[in-house]
Amino acid sequence: MTVRIGVIGTGAIGRDHARRIEKVLQGGRIVALSDVNAASAEAVRADIAPDARVFASGEELIAAPEVDAVLVTSWGATHEQYVLAALKAGKPCFCEKPLATTAEGAKRIVDAEVALGSRLVQVGFMRRYDAGYVALKKVVDSEIGAPLMVHAAHRNPTVPEQYVTPMAIHDTLIHEIDVLRWLLNDEYVSAQVVFPRVSSHSHSQLRDPQIILLETKKGVRIDVEVFVNCRYGYDIQCQVVGEEGLANLPEPMSIVMRKDARQQNAILTDWKDRFIASYDVELQDFLKAAANGTASGPSSWDGYVAAISSDACVKAQETGEIVPISLPERPALYN
Amino acid sequence: MTVRIGVIGTGAIGRDHARRIEKVLQGGRIVALSDVNAASAEAVRADIAPDARVFASGEELIAAPEVDAVLVTSWGATHEQYVLAALKAGKPCFCEKPLATTAEGAKRIVDAEVALGSRLVQVGFMRRYDAGYVALKKVVDSEIGAPLMVHAAHRNPTVPEQYVTPMAIHDTLIHEIDVLRWLLNDEYVSAQVVFPRVSSHSHSQLRDPQIILLETKKGVRIDVEVFVNCRYGYDIQCQVVGEEGLANLPEPMSIVMRKDARQQNAILTDWKDRFIASYDVELQDFLKAAANGTASGPSSWDGYVAAISSDACVKAQETGEIVPISLPERPALYN
Amino acid sequence: MTVRIGVIGTGAIGRDHARRIEKVLQGGRIVALSDVNAASAEAVRADIAPDARVFASGEELIAAPEVDAVLVTSWGATHEQYVLAALKAGKPCFCEKPLATTAEGAKRIVDAEVALGSRLVQVGFMRRYDAGYVALKKVVDSEIGAPLMVHAAHRNPTVPEQYVTPMAIHDTLIHEIDVLRWLLNDEYVSAQVVFPRVSSHSHSQLRDPQIILLETKKGVRIDVEVFVNCRYGYDIQCQVVGEEGLANLPEPMSIVMRKDARQQNAILTDWKDRFIASYDVELQDFLKAAANGTASGPSSWDGYVAAISSDACVKAQETGEIVPISLPERPALYN
Amino acid sequence: MTVRIGVIGTGAIGRDHARRIEKVLQGGRIVALSDVNAASAEAVRADIAPDARVFASGEELIAAPEVDAVLVTSWGATHEQYVLAALKAGKPCFCEKPLATTAEGAKRIVDAEVALGSRLVQVGFMRRYDAGYVALKKVVDSEIGAPLMVHAAHRNPTVPEQYVTPMAIHDTLIHEIDVLRWLLNDEYVSAQVVFPRVSSHSHSQLRDPQIILLETKKGVRIDVEVFVNCRYGYDIQCQVVGEEGLANLPEPMSIVMRKDARQQNAILTDWKDRFIASYDVELQDFLKAAANGTASGPSSWDGYVAAISSDACVKAQETGEIVPISLPERPALYN
Repeated sequence: MTVRIGVIGTGAIGRDHARRIEKVLQGGRIVALSDVNAASAEAVRADIAPDARVFASGEELIAAPEVDAVLVTSWGATHEQYVLAALKAGKPCFCEKPLATTAEGAKRIVDAEVALGSRLVQVGFMRRYDAGYVALKKVVDSEIGAPLMVHAAHRNPTVPEQYVTPMAIHDTLIHEIDVLRWLLNDEYVSAQVVFPRVSSHSHSQLRDPQIILLETKKGVRIDVEVFVNCRYGYDIQCQVVGEEGLANLPEPMSIVMRKDARQQNAILTDWKDRFIASYDVELQDFLKAAANGTASGPSSWDGYVAAISSDACVKAQETGEIVPISLPERPALYN
Repeated sequence: MTVRIGVIGTGAIGRDHARRIEKVLQGGRIVALSDVNAASAEAVRADIAPDARVFASGEELIAAPEVDAVLVTSWGATHEQYVLAALKAGKPCFCEKPLATTAEGAKRIVDAEVALGSRLVQVGFMRRYDAGYVALKKVVDSEIGAPLMVHAAHRNPTVPEQYVTPMAIHDTLIHEIDVLRWLLNDEYVSAQVVFPRVSSHSHSQLRDPQIILLETKKGVRIDVEVFVNCRYGYDIQCQVVGEEGLANLPEPMSIVMRKDARQQNAILTDWKDRFIASYDVELQDFLKAAANGTASGPSSWDGYVAAISSDACVKAQETGEIVPISLPERPALYN
Repeated sequence: MTVRIGVIGTGAIGRDHARRIEKVLQGGRIVALSDVNAASAEAVRADIAPDARVFASGEELIAAPEVDAVLVTSWGATHEQYVLAALKAGKPCFCEKPLATTAEGAKRIVDAEVALGSRLVQVGFMRRYDAGYVALKKVVDSEIGAPLMVHAAHRNPTVPEQYVTPMAIHDTLIHEIDVLRWLLNDEYVSAQVVFPRVSSHSHSQLRDPQIILLETKKGVRIDVEVFVNCRYGYDIQCQVVGEEGLANLPEPMSIVMRKDARQQNAILTDWKDRFIASYDVELQDFLKAAANGTASGPSSWDGYVAAISSDACVKAQETGEIVPISLPERPALYN
Repeated sequence: MTVRIGVIGTGAIGRDHARRIEKVLQGGRIVALSDVNAASAEAVRADIAPDARVFASGEELIAAPEVDAVLVTSWGATHEQYVLAALKAGKPCFCEKPLATTAEGAKRIVDAEVALGSRLVQVGFMRRYDAGYVALKKVVDSEIGAPLMVHAAHRNPTVPEQYVTPMAIHDTLIHEIDVLRWLLNDEYVSAQVVFPRVSSHSHSQLRDPQIILLETKKGVRIDVEVFVNCRYGYDIQCQVVGEEGLANLPEPMSIVMRKDARQQNAILTDWKDRFIASYDVELQDFLKAAANGTASGPSSWDGYVAAISSDACVKAQETGEIVPISLPERPALYN
């Protein structure tokens, strides 16, 4: 069965997902497009999905009977309304992060899905589909004993002027927040943020770098260096220290050269290259589940937990305090 | 446009390619199957391509009007006849290695394709599609100056008793023979084989390991260690030394652990895992070209050159001499 | 000129230093020995320095006119008295860590040396003489821009039952405390300790592992994982992240093998092997300075600062608070 | 006991060895110096060994009663005469490579030493004292099964115009010739040389790079790439492939940095840095044996075998043939 997909929001990521479904993956077809900028939707139709219909609004697209499932790749502030509409329509829905701009908004989605009684929403936390993290999880689950600590880093070469201190949490750390609780099968109980001296390559509205300290229910201590003006590259590090040994996230493939008195290999500089393959895998997973009228992978609950945890980290940034993180009971739907 | 594919030979690799086309790749559909063992073809139909028709012979399958293109994945001795039949029918044809069991047979295919005047055949040298070799070629072409030497190794943990000395060329070195001339954009002019002491893990009909020395037109010297009872893993190494520096084929991704007084990471032991992704890429390339009624990637000419070069290596095994390799003029079709 | 050395305390480290001076290094000779256990001193005399004289007490040894310089390698609680005696006698003195068991004791030594007006004391912080740290310091000083963060780890395979929680500071972290302020040319201003879940390989009096967070005057943030039951090896890690890039402490030399489906190399398991060469270098440095009637390398001031900083870390262990570290003005003698 | 050393030849290496004995090592003292250029000997006396006596000739130095042992670090063509003189005088003698400029000359030394009935000569093959080779030998002897192949490389960034093709054997490969037979505990039986295209950075009298193929009695096959204009660095590689696994010579210590979109670490460019520590170890070994009136380490026999093997390699360069290497029976003295 081919899943007929409608895409709400045809900017960079929406267009790219449309391309995946039309040109790379199996089991889906783009039949509907919508964007606040109609010309953008029209362009994606012309370039990628000539048989798709362009809708004036996301709500109309969701309601269209020829649409089996929905991708929400619009501006973050609109995610909640479209996901809720998709749930109301009973249609599987892939939503890019954030699921909602507030924890309350994410909770409304969780509540709606729980009321419905079956999963329909997948959130776009693509790292869970990265071959490196998948391999690391297998080793963590089987080879190094109980995890005790995680040392992680999330480094970007540079960020634009609009990127301000709290975005280190909402736009950057958010990926570690999701992937580490999945990796450890654990939940956070507190957050603290410490600020090293600010890099001279940062700007006045951005305290960069930062170190975020997270504690989990099982007592694992996590430190994540977020350094978004590190200059040298886009570099994602993750080391898990267990009772019997430690394991590291693999490096991206690169050619080791000897040249100019250096052994050297390139480090990625564009984040888009790092997890490029995992976008294919996550969307293929969505298509497969959607063909059965359901959803798998990162759930609304995961999006909600990420929102609560992020909020605590931002509060920790602002106060310098150790901020507790408390989660409601996890609904049975998400077990 | 969806390319309607017929598969001749539904053993392990034929079944796997059928799965790829039906479940992973875009642009193709399995419509026809054939195998000397009809039950095998029937099983693939039942499991993977329920709408496909099972043909009594490869020739009938090739002739069927609903078949747009052909995969030849049958027993090696039958490749030539099916490829020639596909050429006669004017249908794009993907042929697993070897293109033919003799250089003469491969030449008959080249002649037929040249007479036809357009490419229809792709040979299954999948390493050219491996992300590691592709990255290495890019570096070799741009960063390390003129290539002077290649140091390579092709190691298997073990081989069955039926694997005898010349198979180190025909079944194992054949991949280096193809990929290194592609990597260097060069041709071989001589071959020599030297035999170290035989590993005690080998058997009486197999001199293992071997070192094959190849010389190219441009004067590059290549040494390839072939060691098929190396015990420790399936390990493919390739280092190109150029005038300005050197570059290495990347290692497969693996998790570096520290445990039991060792820093350690797993080495693959099953060859099927090493180039698994490149099979997808080569077949996607075939589907794309077939949709345009042509073929790209490794050609009949490449299959023919591999056959001539292999024959020289086997002669070098037998004689201990430096055996010249001389190729006919390359037809313009393959430039 | 040959410096005539007296050794106070002829246990493992004292004996080993005596061997160095007699058998490996240039410029020194062991002429005097003393130990609370006279038999021990006698044994070292017999085995290593047959011409040396055994003294009944450290004080007598220090006073002996044939002794030019003193090694204090006795039980920690006696260091202060012997160093003060050596200062009084105006003789260069190498003292193993700790310089004194309390910050107050260390301060008395500093005061005495300042009153004397010239350096005579070297403290046995051997890491400053390790080739890896020396190379790292050079890179930190010149290649990676202003340091912003240090991620470090100090791991032991196991510790005996007598090793209790505060010893993670006094016996283990003490080395990072000294070497990192030297590496960064900076001082600490605060300490915090966080405790992950306790490893099941620890025991009831030891919270293991621990993470110590240090902040420096210049704003560098340091995290040190101390994990003394890590099982897999003795492993010292240090990564400095600067404004322009990052640099890592090198790993000890080891042979990379491929065997048993693993790429693998041994990790040290005995701490004595890790810095073995640096003991030679530090003592050679002592002999060289002593020949000129002075001392270089880690000073009394460094020993005093280490004591103050350690005390703060222990308080941070006990309270869970961020504990300020405040140092007196550095006497000009130590600039 | 302090060994009183006379140095014949006070150029770069002679001066450096004098410095070692006077400033670094234990158990020796420079008491005599001699050089064809008397001013050079005088300068070393003034700078390093003020109490030494300068002799007009090597022969007089050897004969002087205050000289216990001799270092021969003069021009290669004079080595034989001085070593023979030292043997005649019954004095331990350390001779830099080559032991003699011809195999016949080396044989004369072996014969003289055998006639004497005890070892007095150590040849300056310092690699046997390198910590990396020592560690590799231990692994080869115990962990990877019977050796089958060795893949080695000896690369220099550049050589002067006077360096011509045969010097790739006599000055460069000579180190692999000695160290690999020691590593394998084996002897060579044949040599072959193949020439890749010449690097454009070479000059008209130098075919660079070269690959030397050696076969041993036990059937091990060795390939050594000698590339003395490799541009990028001074790089010594050695990989031993055994029946159960493989082992690699360790890389020199260096700091791994991440900077400028590269993971990178420096490669040595000056050969003097690579084995610097092993010169200390070899000379200390000489001093220790000389104190007992004998010699250990690389022997006259080793120097003789190196000469025979080198000659075969040069013949292989000249002829392109596989040149047999046949050694006389090894005298019992060298077992």
